[in-house]
Amino acid sequence: MSGSVFGKQFKVSTWGESHGKAVGVVVDGCPAGLTLDESDIQFELDRRRPGKNKYATPRSESDKVQILSGVFEGKTLGTPISMLVENKNQHSKDYSNLKDVYRPSHADFTYDAKYGLRDYRGGGRASARETIGRVAAGAVAKKILSHFGVSFMSYTKAVANIEVEDNEINLSEIEKNILRIPNANKAKDASRLLDKLIKDGNSAGGSVECIVKGIKAGLGETVFDKTDALLAKAIMSIPAVKAVEIGNGVKARENYGYDNNDNFYTEDNAIKKTSNNAGGILGGITDGSDILLRATIKAPASISKPQKTVNKSMENVEVTIEGRHDPVVVHRAGVIIEAMTALVLVDLLMQNATSTMDRLLKAYE
Amino acid sequence: MSGSVFGKQFKVSTWGESHGKAVGVVVDGCPAGLTLDESDIQFELDRRRPGKNKYATPRSESDKVQILSGVFEGKTLGTPISMLVENKNQHSKDYSNLKDVYRPSHADFTYDAKYGLRDYRGGGRASARETIGRVAAGAVAKKILSHFGVSFMSYTKAVANIEVEDNEINLSEIEKNILRIPNANKAKDASRLLDKLIKDGNSAGGSVECIVKGIKAGLGETVFDKTDALLAKAIMSIPAVKAVEIGNGVKARENYGYDNNDNFYTEDNAIKKTSNNAGGILGGITDGSDILLRATIKAPASISKPQKTVNKSMENVEVTIEGRHDPVVVHRAGVIIEAMTALVLVDLLMQNATSTMDRLLKAYE
Amino acid sequence: MSGSVFGKQFKVSTWGESHGKAVGVVVDGCPAGLTLDESDIQFELDRRRPGKNKYATPRSESDKVQILSGVFEGKTLGTPISMLVENKNQHSKDYSNLKDVYRPSHADFTYDAKYGLRDYRGGGRASARETIGRVAAGAVAKKILSHFGVSFMSYTKAVANIEVEDNEINLSEIEKNILRIPNANKAKDASRLLDKLIKDGNSAGGSVECIVKGIKAGLGETVFDKTDALLAKAIMSIPAVKAVEIGNGVKARENYGYDNNDNFYTEDNAIKKTSNNAGGILGGITDGSDILLRATIKAPASISKPQKTVNKSMENVEVTIEGRHDPVVVHRAGVIIEAMTALVLVDLLMQNATSTMDRLLKAYE
Amino acid sequence: MSGSVFGKQFKVSTWGESHGKAVGVVVDGCPAGLTLDESDIQFELDRRRPGKNKYATPRSESDKVQILSGVFEGKTLGTPISMLVENKNQHSKDYSNLKDVYRPSHADFTYDAKYGLRDYRGGGRASARETIGRVAAGAVAKKILSHFGVSFMSYTKAVANIEVEDNEINLSEIEKNILRIPNANKAKDASRLLDKLIKDGNSAGGSVECIVKGIKAGLGETVFDKTDALLAKAIMSIPAVKAVEIGNGVKARENYGYDNNDNFYTEDNAIKKTSNNAGGILGGITDGSDILLRATIKAPASISKPQKTVNKSMENVEVTIEGRHDPVVVHRAGVIIEAMTALVLVDLLMQNATSTMDRLLKAYE
Repeated sequence: MSGSVFGKQFKVSTWGESHGKAVGVVVDGCPAGLTLDESDIQFELDRRRPGKNKYATPRSESDKVQILSGVFEGKTLGTPISMLVENKNQHSKDYSNLKDVYRPSHADFTYDAKYGLRDYRGGGRASARETIGRVAAGAVAKKILSHFGVSFMSYTKAVANIEVEDNEINLSEIEKNILRIPNANKAKDASRLLDKLIKDGNSAGGSVECIVKGIKAGLGETVFDKTDALLAKAIMSIPAVKAVEIGNGVKARENYGYDNNDNFYTEDNAIKKTSNNAGGILGGITDGSDILLRATIKAPASISKPQKTVNKSMENVEVTIEGRHDPVVVHRAGVIIEAMTALVLVDLLMQNATSTMDRLLKAYE
Repeated sequence: MSGSVFGKQFKVSTWGESHGKAVGVVVDGCPAGLTLDESDIQFELDRRRPGKNKYATPRSESDKVQILSGVFEGKTLGTPISMLVENKNQHSKDYSNLKDVYRPSHADFTYDAKYGLRDYRGGGRASARETIGRVAAGAVAKKILSHFGVSFMSYTKAVANIEVEDNEINLSEIEKNILRIPNANKAKDASRLLDKLIKDGNSAGGSVECIVKGIKAGLGETVFDKTDALLAKAIMSIPAVKAVEIGNGVKARENYGYDNNDNFYTEDNAIKKTSNNAGGILGGITDGSDILLRATIKAPASISKPQKTVNKSMENVEVTIEGRHDPVVVHRAGVIIEAMTALVLVDLLMQNATSTMDRLLKAYE
Repeated sequence: MSGSVFGKQFKVSTWGESHGKAVGVVVDGCPAGLTLDESDIQFELDRRRPGKNKYATPRSESDKVQILSGVFEGKTLGTPISMLVENKNQHSKDYSNLKDVYRPSHADFTYDAKYGLRDYRGGGRASARETIGRVAAGAVAKKILSHFGVSFMSYTKAVANIEVEDNEINLSEIEKNILRIPNANKAKDASRLLDKLIKDGNSAGGSVECIVKGIKAGLGETVFDKTDALLAKAIMSIPAVKAVEIGNGVKARENYGYDNNDNFYTEDNAIKKTSNNAGGILGGITDGSDILLRATIKAPASISKPQKTVNKSMENVEVTIEGRHDPVVVHRAGVIIEAMTALVLVDLLMQNATSTMDRLLKAYE
Repeated sequence: MSGSVFGKQFKVSTWGESHGKAVGVVVDGCPAGLTLDESDIQFELDRRRPGKNKYATPRSESDKVQILSGVFEGKTLGTPISMLVENKNQHSKDYSNLKDVYRPSHADFTYDAKYGLRDYRGGGRASARETIGRVAAGAVAKKILSHFGVSFMSYTKAVANIEVEDNEINLSEIEKNILRIPNANKAKDASRLLDKLIKDGNSAGGSVECIVKGIKAGLGETVFDKTDALLAKAIMSIPAVKAVEIGNGVKARENYGYDNNDNFYTEDNAIKKTSNNAGGILGGITDGSDILLRATIKAPASISKPQKTVNKSMENVEVTIEGRHDPVVVHRAGVIIEAMTALVLVDLLMQNATSTMDRLLKAYE
């Protein structure tokens, strides 16, 4: 069944295998009259694709986006926006020896279990390359949200056990190190660890935090389509994510109710909170505070070390995955998490526009 | 917009305010020919509604379910199954003093921000009473899944900081204590803590684990509708949940790749794994191992201690929430988590039935 | 799969078999703050249920609607509105002899083919009684649309071959005859025909026109969710409808392009048309003129005359359907057609509220 | 809101303006393991694009389809199938003088009313060029259905008032004349009429019939997603369609019930019907007979004759639409109607695969 469609009003359909001709996305439901061109999209795609460095081995692709429809004379038409990025490296032979082997903790086995066949030249739809469509669509979502004063930020909270505590965070450090860690010392520690893991043919996970500023109170639908529920789905759908937390997340259980509750107070004729354990969401609906969320990313499953596994003939075998591998992907997850968060929020912003008779009448005034 | 509808093929629509006439659910898309009667539903609703004890203050309601449609002579008809539970206590006056006050960490403020009005007699749709519809629908889902050999289990993993470590779990203890903790000593510790919190007018959170056994490999759709993504949404949509983890969850970052990867091996002509850090899901698709998930539940926001907050007139005030309050709800969350998990899995089971030409042709043989 | 859910933002889920305990509907996505009570719904349900007369044999039921959720102190809450009407006659024994016989042109055979079983006590979901939920939901839709100046009208255009030509229509006659025919003479002709058909144990079909006034230009989505496409689905989904026409409909082919085109002109600073062959919809989007649609209703399949058919044992048999039967249902279809039309238009009104950045920004001003 | 997405399980998203870079479609939910290549799609696209003749002025485009994803080594992967056709003529200047004028009975005015702007170089999404995506997706649907023995046929039933009566139909004539009329004499009559209309700068409409053979009994969902309701939506969404009829359609009202009912009988251990007024659908569910449907197509709105209209400055003006125009499009509608019909039926086939416990269990045997 259709699993590559996301959202209700701002509906995003991604497509493309990692080693097919191209990957792309169709955004249906974008309001007309938004100023948009390819540079808006390319900016986010370039953030997704880090320069060549010792912790990343990007395919030698420019990942240039083409907008094929839905934009005319620099404005969105209100019709589907089709965007495409070519796969210039799709004829790679690197993966041919993996045709019949199920790599440990990859989706090779489960895709075969589900579909009976797969594009064995790479991860297919399970590849991180699939996230190009998400980031492209997210760029459109961010552009809309910017008109409502909403902005996004993300950083690496931890690599393996090297975690930046809340009181150690220095946001100005984020873009100063490849790993996007908001603390210079921790960044150095992480770098040393990764150097060692590269030598060992091993890899590390970590965690990422994302903060959304400027969001209105009142977004999010009741019961199943709560803001936090949709964010959880959106983030957990990103490859390698194993946990999603909102506000204080797993630490919520360490607080008793009196301390965990965020007290309201008024200031400058606005309702504010003395703390934000809730992460900006109460009863599934935004409360006007920053949205705070956290994702745990597992260590990349692709490692050089030989591993034990099975093949399609049901034989126990040893596999060595050839080529260079990223020892960590945490620093690359932030932009994808921002994109998915933006997709959720723009959809809820649109949904909420008709949640009261007042708002519906105003739209048509 | 519609936020009270869940699922694609097995579509669940819940309705009802906590202090309205009734709460209920319509299940559309249930296959015809399933043996079903009210006792199947009542069994799960009774699990949801604990006997009166010092850690729970259930409304004095029997919560008897009525099936109004979709079942005939003990079999499902394939048409919508409408189920209803009356709210016998809805004329309670307990909440009248809260009409204009925003209780800290409740949804009072955000509902007003979104809708401009709310049913101030209680939590409305944000109340835990809303979960009756989920549990009723989940009971139907479990019945279907039982025909495929799937079973569900849940227990309290932690109350506040009192956590049962993996090697301390004794499943036979679960139903021996009110808190559903799988370890007798930890259950006593938790009980002592809660006694103290009741005296203080305070409350505690915790965590719950849910395990699904017998699920086939191959369920889950690609990209956005991954099994883990849908579970994350389903569980995060339950009131008070702040984090959702799959497999080793937040601990995934503590493992390097070589150790975190689950190796495949063959035994008895089946493909198995040496570990289950993945929690039974690879690339979003079930791998045939147990599904493991964990939810963090915050401490109940309703406490007796006086708290600071604001009212609708934007004044800073102190609020005391009258009545008795549950000091903990973790032990009551398990059955709801099982229900939501069952709703996700039955929907994916149905979706996957048409994922290959082979399967589609077999359905019509 | 779920077929009893209609609409995207204003989402309607109906449920209930004709001879089950009740029929009902859940409306999810209704804007908050709409003044609404049971009398708004009952008004339309009473229009649906004609008084006892020679052309209608209503079940002796009061069809009193109960609103169970989503409305508080006379206003909608923005949450699901659950409405229920009891089936007081469900223990009828009239249908027991039809358990194993497939009535000609009924859904008995096809329900068995699809589901393997059916509620043989009556038409189940295929019964016209299912339309109660549609009419109840439609009443909510009409109430919203009335705030935008939209109104609905319907009448019987033809009974069998007795058709009221466009130039014979006298709207003031509609409510003066049971058959809702807008012409006194044609109403008498139709009445005479039906008297004869009753004697013969036979029945007649006809056609209904529905006109919507006051709708804004700009509603309707592109490509698949055009206004006319959604109306066609909505109307064709009503039992016994065999054709749906928009504007001049099947007569469109009789005009050459020059005459069929509606010319625009300006008057009073508004854009108007010299004719309305299009029926108020251009390219799937409303043009601000009246929406005109027409439905052909087949003669009721339930007749007293003995008919040839087969039974579940695959034997050729003769069947006589006992009881009194309506010789015509055309006059009762108007209110249902209006309801379905209102459901389409309110959904499109809500969808269109976010179709431009301007409108989206205004909603939040 | 998203209006360019069609279907539930077999989900089709089309995109592209008539004068943008390309048009295309993404099919999500196609079962894996279907043999498919570009020639399957091209075959139907070539049927859609008639050779240059006096009744058609195709853009000089080859309309070559590229499959960009979802197919590997000649088989579908179960993942989204992205298909694209370039617009080679998009830099045409023909339309520049129409930037500010609302052509009569075109969507220029309504698109502006809805979106505030439009791609004035052509019809944008309202252009018939949009149907390329439908036909491409329909080709995939037909390929699946062929494995279940389903086949499609269509022909021109009428051009203006020149109608082929049921007893005059000779199917072997269909492909012998450009107009696809199943009667040689009527084809000549129509040809003469069109020659005259071309001289007059005028155009003609007509009607098309589509017949589906080999469909199983039991497809179609209850209430809103009846087979006939979905077909009505699908067909009415095609540009220029003004009426959709099922079975005897508008003629149903001419029959009394006894004659309109189709009697069942058994033959060769199968249940058959003595007639097919119902058009193969009872209670919204297929009965195993041929599906019969009919669409009325209006005369093309683009004509050479000068017409009165208004411009964006609200002035009454005369407009002459330059270039050559098709005097009729009825003969080109059949392939599109077949495609939309196939999209409805494949979706219902997939939905029905889980409508009973028996079928669901069989899929997993």
